[in-house]
Amino acid sequence: MDSKEYQIRLSHIRKAFQEAGADACLISTHVNIFYLTGQIFSGYIYLSGNEDPLWLVRRPAGLEGPRVRYIRKVEQLPSMLQEEGLPAPGTLLIEGEEMGIDAWMRIQKALPATRLLNGSHALRVARSIKTDEEIALIRQSAEAHAGVYRLIPGIYKPGMTDRDLAVELDCLMLRHGNLGLFRAFGDMDAFMGTVLAGDNAAVPSPYDFALGGAGVPSNPVGASGLTLQRGMSVMVDLSGNFTGYLDDMSRTFSIGKLTDEAYRAHQVSIDISNRLQEELVPGAVCEDLYATALKMAEDAGLGHCFMGTRQQAKFVGHGVGLVINEWPVLARHMNNRLEANMVVAVEPKFVIEGTGAVGVENTYVVREGQGEKITLAEERILDLEP
Amino acid sequence: MDSKEYQIRLSHIRKAFQEAGADACLISTHVNIFYLTGQIFSGYIYLSGNEDPLWLVRRPAGLEGPRVRYIRKVEQLPSMLQEEGLPAPGTLLIEGEEMGIDAWMRIQKALPATRLLNGSHALRVARSIKTDEEIALIRQSAEAHAGVYRLIPGIYKPGMTDRDLAVELDCLMLRHGNLGLFRAFGDMDAFMGTVLAGDNAAVPSPYDFALGGAGVPSNPVGASGLTLQRGMSVMVDLSGNFTGYLDDMSRTFSIGKLTDEAYRAHQVSIDISNRLQEELVPGAVCEDLYATALKMAEDAGLGHCFMGTRQQAKFVGHGVGLVINEWPVLARHMNNRLEANMVVAVEPKFVIEGTGAVGVENTYVVREGQGEKITLAEERILDLEP
Repeated sequence: MDSKEYQIRLSHIRKAFQEAGADACLISTHVNIFYLTGQIFSGYIYLSGNEDPLWLVRRPAGLEGPRVRYIRKVEQLPSMLQEEGLPAPGTLLIEGEEMGIDAWMRIQKALPATRLLNGSHALRVARSIKTDEEIALIRQSAEAHAGVYRLIPGIYKPGMTDRDLAVELDCLMLRHGNLGLFRAFGDMDAFMGTVLAGDNAAVPSPYDFALGGAGVPSNPVGASGLTLQRGMSVMVDLSGNFTGYLDDMSRTFSIGKLTDEAYRAHQVSIDISNRLQEELVPGAVCEDLYATALKMAEDAGLGHCFMGTRQQAKFVGHGVGLVINEWPVLARHMNNRLEANMVVAVEPKFVIEGTGAVGVENTYVVREGQGEKITLAEERILDLEP
Repeated sequence: MDSKEYQIRLSHIRKAFQEAGADACLISTHVNIFYLTGQIFSGYIYLSGNEDPLWLVRRPAGLEGPRVRYIRKVEQLPSMLQEEGLPAPGTLLIEGEEMGIDAWMRIQKALPATRLLNGSHALRVARSIKTDEEIALIRQSAEAHAGVYRLIPGIYKPGMTDRDLAVELDCLMLRHGNLGLFRAFGDMDAFMGTVLAGDNAAVPSPYDFALGGAGVPSNPVGASGLTLQRGMSVMVDLSGNFTGYLDDMSRTFSIGKLTDEAYRAHQVSIDISNRLQEELVPGAVCEDLYATALKMAEDAGLGHCFMGTRQQAKFVGHGVGLVINEWPVLARHMNNRLEANMVVAVEPKFVIEGTGAVGVENTYVVREGQGEKITLAEERILDLEP
């Protein structure tokens, strides 16, 4: 990462902890260390005031730099700060969502006079406004991702199961450079994404996805092993991690013709997407976008199957970037405002009984005027039957 | 999961929280919910005394059963316990390593008179002694895994990079039923495992793997994009998740002939493995197994390249099961004893400068007499050059 980019990201993190009322910030998750430095190490970054941050590295061996110090355990932090001439912070922001209680208590014990703040959310918010370099990396993922989706008709074979198709898709993604890793915030399991065919799309999942799918008992989401048959829709919802930065895109395919209702609902999804694209502007309120989407679905008589049937997800979009579920969330009760250069996936989807899931998901950059769509692939339902 | 299996697993968890001095246990991670029930839901399992546990489900919709209750938030716990005629626990074991500080504090606030215990470790220990059913599932993964490894010579093509080979391997695994999901305890990223060729094997990684590899900046472990060339070893270390339960197995291949030293070191790895197999018996002390392995490596004049060169991992084995890094760990300062039916991967590896990584990794069940090896695939270094 070049020095200018580093300074921009530092300024985002600094703003986050200073606005939270902290004097310093101790970062320990891979995601935030990568955000800040462009590399991953095990250890901590200590950032206070206006100095360059300290890189407190546990592993790998051999990192070098003027601000690199090796650390074995967090108990060394006070003496290391002292050696650098830095005071113990009055208030320290740490990643309380992503560390165990023991790690939290050890930091508190090492810095008994310091007030600890759980800054996980503030750091997610800080990361939500992407730099030009980050947007370029997400765009690069989206372009490669779209290239793979164009190849989907070529991997379909009559008689295959949804899982067969999901496997061939994963292989296609990997062979075209997808890095495989699917990072998420929280206890959210998946593997690149999901393929949902036919009525499996209506099966509720424990996970916080837009839709579900039975999956397998040890990972209950997505493909369930059913044979693809005429009249089924097949929704492909994978995450494109070709650069370390993720885009998110869903497209719908069909096995032969679908019902008129399915095509109509698919068009409503496209209409909602286009409408929300106009609203993906700085200052827009997140819950308003969800309300707009829900109202359009209801006005089309499709409220009962919007974002599922037996279980309906209560959001229509979410940030993407280093993880699949970044800030912000387009959902009820989210009264925060969009800002320029946030990157948001919008996924108004419908589940049609007897057919399956229909709709599209695209990733947009929030811009003045309207959102910029970066997932550029055919949005019509493509028939996979030869 | 049948009722008998459920009772066995319940008894493991009960023993864990009771020995920790707790009156009850509140489980919330996918891994432990799956362990206990054979399915995953979002929510909690509340287990006290000898009653059947309460399943407190947030998602998916539609779960049914005599002990299933739907819950929206943890603040409802006290009133739900009251409705069941259960007292608020004096001491409650919760998964403190895997929840954020806010979740911990919310539980504490909901149960102000309850003492909370961080039971993550106790639950890992409880899960470390596998049931016959779990061993059967790990064995099934190991058999499918070995089947895939036998196909590796068929996917090698001269001129491919380590990453090309890694991708083809991942595809092979997926097509043969690997579920893709690689669960780990802690902030440990990977994707099925690693392929290490040539001197990339010596590159230190931030992750807690036996060996490293440069990987890519956003995921610094494993293949680095180098072209496979004559004289390189290629170590394949993937996790076999074909059943929800993981085995762990590494095998070494070569591009043409390797140096005599490399073959000798590989044989030392097999010798160490065979020796440790004899010691994988109930009552053996974990650190003793590590000491045995280290001594054998040193006696062979290979201490300097045992488990890496520039960075040396300080363990030689680890539990496997629902996650890749289960309890126990065969490492220095681990003075706990093995018990029958623990499942442990043993991976004495060497990094030979100019050649790469050599050695084997196998998964064993701890048994009276000696460990039972369940990863049955050729252990010699196979030459991939046609």
